[in-house]
This record gives sequence, C-alpha cells and structure tokens, in this order.
Amino acid sequence: MSLIVQKFGGTSVANLERISNVAKRVAKTFDEGHDVVVIVSAMSGVTDNLIKLANQITELPDKRELDVILATGEQVTAPLLAITLQNMNYSATSLLGFQAEILTDGAYGNARIVGISANKIKELLEKRNIVVVAGFQGWDSSGNITTLGRGGSDTSGVAIAAALKADVCEIYTDVDGIYTTDPNVCSKAKKINRISYEEILEMASLGAKVLQIRSVEIAKNFNVPVHVRTSFSEEEGTMVVNEEPEMERVVVTGVTYNKNEARITLKNVPDQPGIAAKILSPISDASIVVDMIIQNTKDSGETDFTFTVPKAEFKRAMDIENRVAKDISAKEVAGDTNISKISITGVGMRSHSGVAVKMFTTLAKENINILMISTSEIRISCVIDEKYTEKAVQLLHTAFGLDKQ
Amino acid sequence: MSLIVQKFGGTSVANLERISNVAKRVAKTFDEGHDVVVIVSAMSGVTDNLIKLANQITELPDKRELDVILATGEQVTAPLLAITLQNMNYSATSLLGFQAEILTDGAYGNARIVGISANKIKELLEKRNIVVVAGFQGWDSSGNITTLGRGGSDTSGVAIAAALKADVCEIYTDVDGIYTTDPNVCSKAKKINRISYEEILEMASLGAKVLQIRSVEIAKNFNVPVHVRTSFSEEEGTMVVNEEPEMERVVVTGVTYNKNEARITLKNVPDQPGIAAKILSPISDASIVVDMIIQNTKDSGETDFTFTVPKAEFKRAMDIENRVAKDISAKEVAGDTNISKISITGVGMRSHSGVAVKMFTTLAKENINILMISTSEIRISCVIDEKYTEKAVQLLHTAFGLDKQ
Repeated sequence: MSLIVQKFGGTSVANLERISNVAKRVAKTFDEGHDVVVIVSAMSGVTDNLIKLANQITELPDKRELDVILATGEQVTAPLLAITLQNMNYSATSLLGFQAEILTDGAYGNARIVGISANKIKELLEKRNIVVVAGFQGWDSSGNITTLGRGGSDTSGVAIAAALKADVCEIYTDVDGIYTTDPNVCSKAKKINRISYEEILEMASLGAKVLQIRSVEIAKNFNVPVHVRTSFSEEEGTMVVNEEPEMERVVVTGVTYNKNEARITLKNVPDQPGIAAKILSPISDASIVVDMIIQNTKDSGETDFTFTVPKAEFKRAMDIENRVAKDISAKEVAGDTNISKISITGVGMRSHSGVAVKMFTTLAKENINILMISTSEIRISCVIDEKYTEKAVQLLHTAFGLDKQ
Repeated sequence: MSLIVQKFGGTSVANLERISNVAKRVAKTFDEGHDVVVIVSAMSGVTDNLIKLANQITELPDKRELDVILATGEQVTAPLLAITLQNMNYSATSLLGFQAEILTDGAYGNARIVGISANKIKELLEKRNIVVVAGFQGWDSSGNITTLGRGGSDTSGVAIAAALKADVCEIYTDVDGIYTTDPNVCSKAKKINRISYEEILEMASLGAKVLQIRSVEIAKNFNVPVHVRTSFSEEEGTMVVNEEPEMERVVVTGVTYNKNEARITLKNVPDQPGIAAKILSPISDASIVVDMIIQNTKDSGETDFTFTVPKAEFKRAMDIENRVAKDISAKEVAGDTNISKISITGVGMRSHSGVAVKMFTTLAKENINILMISTSEIRISCVIDEKYTEKAVQLLHTAFGLDKQ
C-alpha cells in the first residue's frame, strides 16, 4: 500500500462530467489499496473571470482582498469532487487550504509555503477517507487567506506530498507527459519517460508550461517523485526524479523555445565600473524581470550592453533606457521584439564536450544567425530571429538524436 | 460616535453597480464619525445556482461539503465591497466567517451561532477600518465551514451587533420597512414605524419574509435595536425594539397570511389516551414540521384530528397517515391543500378583550368560513379557504383600523 497524491488541473475539473471522470480515477487508485490525497484546481476559466470581476472595480485591487475572492474557485471544485466520490459510496472529505494547515508567508497573490502540518489530512487518511484538498491556497500566520500564484495547485500538490512523505505526486494535465520539444513545432517530438528535477527546472524556465517551477524546486528539495500524466487516458506519463546515472548517456533531453522576450541594446556605452548597475537598476526598480544579459567590450573604451525583458514590458523598459542613455551618454538605444530563444537542456552535457559547438554549427549550416548566447551547466540558449524558431527547433531535435529516442 | 452594523442582502449587492451604491452608503455613515461593520450576503441568485450545481451530482449532497461550496457566495461579495471602499480611499478589510471568529454548532446547512469573540473586528475598528464580514457563514469547533440557513446573513448581522454591543443593526433590504400587511394584497398597507421583537417574531413565523426569525430571537435576547430599511433610498424604515408602553394602544399591529400549508384530517379516530402521539410521532420521525394541531371531541367516543404541514410535505405526510389510520382504526384520512392561514398580531391584544370575536365576525359577515383556529398571547390565526385570502386580509386590515394608521 502506497500513499499517492493526485493533482488535477483546471481542464480536468472543467465541468461535472470531467469531475466524475476524475472521481473514477481516484476511486480506482483507492480500490487498489492505496491512501489517496487529491489536490484540485478551480474549473478552467474561473480564476480569470474572478480577476476580471475585481478589475472592473480597479486595475489594481488590493492583493489581500483579491486572494479571498480567488480562493473561491478551488473552494467549489474540492467539495464537488468530494460529493461525487460520496455518491459513488466512498468516504471523502474536502479540506480548504487553511483546514489542511498550509501555512504560507503573507505575500498575497504569490505566497510561498512555509510549512504544512497536515495533521487533519493524516487523521482523515487513518479513517480511510479520500481527502480532497483545495489547491492554490493557504493562510498566513495571522489567519489571512493567501494564494500561491499561477499554477499554484502544482505547488500545493508537491508540498503536501512532501509533508506526507507520499510515494508519488501524480500531476494530471491535458498533455500526456513532458516532450523532447513542442509537438506543435516538431512532429518528431517524443515523450520523455524519465527526467531529472534539474532538467525540468531548466526547461520550465525556458517556456515549457507543464509544471510550475516552484513545485519542481520543492519536489527536488524533498525528493518527491513527480509523475506528469494525462487525465484522459491510463497511459504512463513522465517521471520527474533525482538525477540517475543512465540519464547522462542522453546528452540532450529536450529542445525548448521562448518567443515572449524582447531585446534591448544600449550602444556605445562608456566602459566604466558600475555601468551595468546604472543600466539595470531602474529596470529592477520598475519590477521588470530581466532574463539574459550580455556585455561586449569594444576597442574604443566603449561597450554595447544588451539584455532581454518580457515582450509585455518592452515599451516600459525602452522608455526607461532612453532616459538612462542620456544620463550615461550612450549613443543609442535599439530594441527588437522579433526574437526567439532556443535552448537545449540535458544533464548529460556535464560530461560531454562539444555540445555548444554542435548547436552553433547546426544553426550556422542553415544560415540562422545567433544574436545572443547564454549557458548554464546543463543548458545552452541562443537568441535568434523569431522567424527561424520552428526550423531551429526541428534541426536541433534531429541533430541531438531526439527524433529516434 | 456610534458603532453601527449594516447588513446588505443579495439584491443590494447583486452587481458591481449596486455594490458601489452600498459602498457610498457605508462611507457616508463612516464619514459621520461612526464605526461601521458591514455584513453582506451573496449576490442574489448565486446561492441557488451553487445548490443547483451540487444537485446535478445528487439530490442530497453531503451537508458539510455543500456548506463549503455555499460559503463562496459571500466570500466573493465581502472582498468586492472592501476593494470598492478602498478604491474610494477608505481603509476597509474583509473577514470571512471563521476570521470573524463566528463559532457555530456543527449543524451544517442550518448552524446556530454559539459564540463570537470578535477580537479581530474590534482590532480593525480601533485602526478606523471599515470591516466587511461575509454573512451566512461560520465555523464549528473542529474548523469545519458551516452556514446558517436561509436568511442567515440577518443572523450574522444581529449576532455580530450583539457581540460588539453595537448601537443599532441596520438591515438593508429591497423593501422600505415592515408593513401592516402585504402591500401586494392590500393597497392600504402602511409602513410600521416601531414594532416589538415579540410582534415581529409572530409575524415572521406567519409568513412575513422581511427578517429571519432567528435573527429576531437573538436581537430580543441581547436587546439589539434592529432597523429594517431599504438600500434604495435614505428613508427611515421600521425599528424593531423592546416592547414600549405606547405600543399597547394599537391593538393589532399587522395582518399576515400563509398559503404554504396543507391540512390533514383523520376522521373518527378512537378517543383514547396517547392517540395524538400515535398520529404525530411518525410525522416528526420523517422530519416534517407540523404547525397547527386541533382535536375535536365527538359524542360517540370518537374524535376528528386535524393538523397542518408545509404543502411541499403534503404527499409524504398523507402516505404516513394512511398507514397510521389503519393501525389506529380511523375511518378516513382527508387532505386539503387549498387552504390559507390568516393571522392578526399585536402586543395590544393582551389588554384588549373581544379581539378574537371581532376577527371571527368580520370574516363571518362576508361568508368566509373558518376551518381551524389557533391563538397565542399576541396572535390569532384562522385557516380559511385559500381563495378568500386577499379578501380576508383586506377586511381585517380595515376592521382593525390599520388603513388609517
């Protein structure tokens, strides 16, 4: 007998028919003799509609109050699933975030879990209840309702699995696992059977939207095996686990891309100490997240300074840098929104040389110009012209042997 | 400076425009220098829709789980009002039932408040916050969400007013006060300026739907002045207070009617000790509420036994009594759903004789036959043929001088 945590996203509980399907799957797991804790999201679309409602009053509703409103989404689906299970003659009990004792910090809208005592869950499991927990929500030490940010139900699921020392946290979603690349872009994309926390962290931060990054960090820290799979079939999905020796045989695990960034370059900046801080502090003060940063030294004692920001923040960032450019006597500010970041990820890179060279030559052979490069221990990213995105993904997928995995 | 509790019902918070109107009224009271605690219901229709959703799974959803779902209605309106007030530059904070420490028993769906510590409310009031509390909800001593039953927000309002020793509990509704009778039935109905807790208790139990009975009981027990008024104008409504000497000058305060009951008669029942219990125990076991009970002795050692039940329970009650009739050798079971109960209420009755006679003769003069009679210290009720309801109300309204109040 195992303790299994199952998390179902918004599309899996989008209506009563789907909730009934979820109940059948939960019941099947329970009937196999396992203890089951279920985490549910709000019905798809509900959270967005609640945000829109509050935004009709003001663009910037108080975050504490907004969290109280948003928490209602999961507060409806959790008891609906419990009622459905009871109707199938299973003992089931719903718990809200605060009832499951999910203690968070007070960062409304994006709270971090600081502890889960889970006594109530354990007590119910001992009575052979199926426990259905409302995802995405918790409370802070003053008793205020908090929410965990977009995709927060993944975090709820993994954190509860960690607190209960569950055997596995199953994340049910509308795709059947994690792929070597986006199947919409590359028809040869293959499902990955096993992937390490580190790799999925890199891939998630690069635009793969299967798991919330924070949930993977928690899974890694508490060594929770995560099984990403579809709620629409019995098929096995992708296991996210600690790095295993055989993983290194595969040099590159996946190819990802991100079209949501824009590039800003300050040209002919005086090459002086502290110039990077002068350029980026106002961006940070405006709460704009910078991704890649590159500085090339020129001969003349001047330098070109380039960084990327989310496309949605491009205009604001350009306004800021036009002011900064005057202050620091830079010659020009250039911006480009037609870029794309292509990345390859894999723990095998650590022990294989020549991976970067292979990536660059693969792109060069097809005359795809590389505008920026950034690397981590298990990832290489190249910024290219946006129009080459699909082609680059397909080329790299083939070049690194992922077509025939 | 006073402490004022204001409760707004579902029609007053039915959309953002109305919530904005509520906010203006709350702000005006606050600007006059008062401390303000606001209790809100769910937007009108929301609670019914949530019940329908759960009923699509099963006719009898688990009451604990249903309460978790129903509590979301007020959990949306309370923060929406707080955000609206903040947007008008007032400090406002929403509190859910459990955050306002509204402790109830564990009777899901119809929980009774057992205590309110209200520390959090007091703390916020001291900081000159407008406190917006989600009505209709609390939690039990095990941390389960509970709801207080239909009209439960009235109870929340009055109970919080009692706990805070508020100067007044204002109940805002879509009518401008309590009337001598239903204005839809009698065009001469007049608004009552002051009425006693006792009278409103009788009138509420007789079908007047302005206030939840339990809220009046709490108001009476804790001596909370309740002001029933409309949220659509500044007009004063009806004050519900302790009985005052001048109230006795008015013999009858109001005329009410109730068309929602049905009559069941067991004919020729052996007149033996314990027969009433034999007839009514199975009804009570089936959780059917009996209102009036009448037993007439006949010469023959037999008796006719009549009682009324809600129309919705008529069929079940008839089935039960048809079985009972065989057991106790009653001759026949007769049922009638076309009845109506007309009542007159007033604390002045205590010191005035002849009120009952006047009621009976008023009806007799117009050939309205009285089928059953029941009385309390400050109320007389007659069951008549349903088709005479409107006529009887109008006749009694005139006969007891209410037309020209």
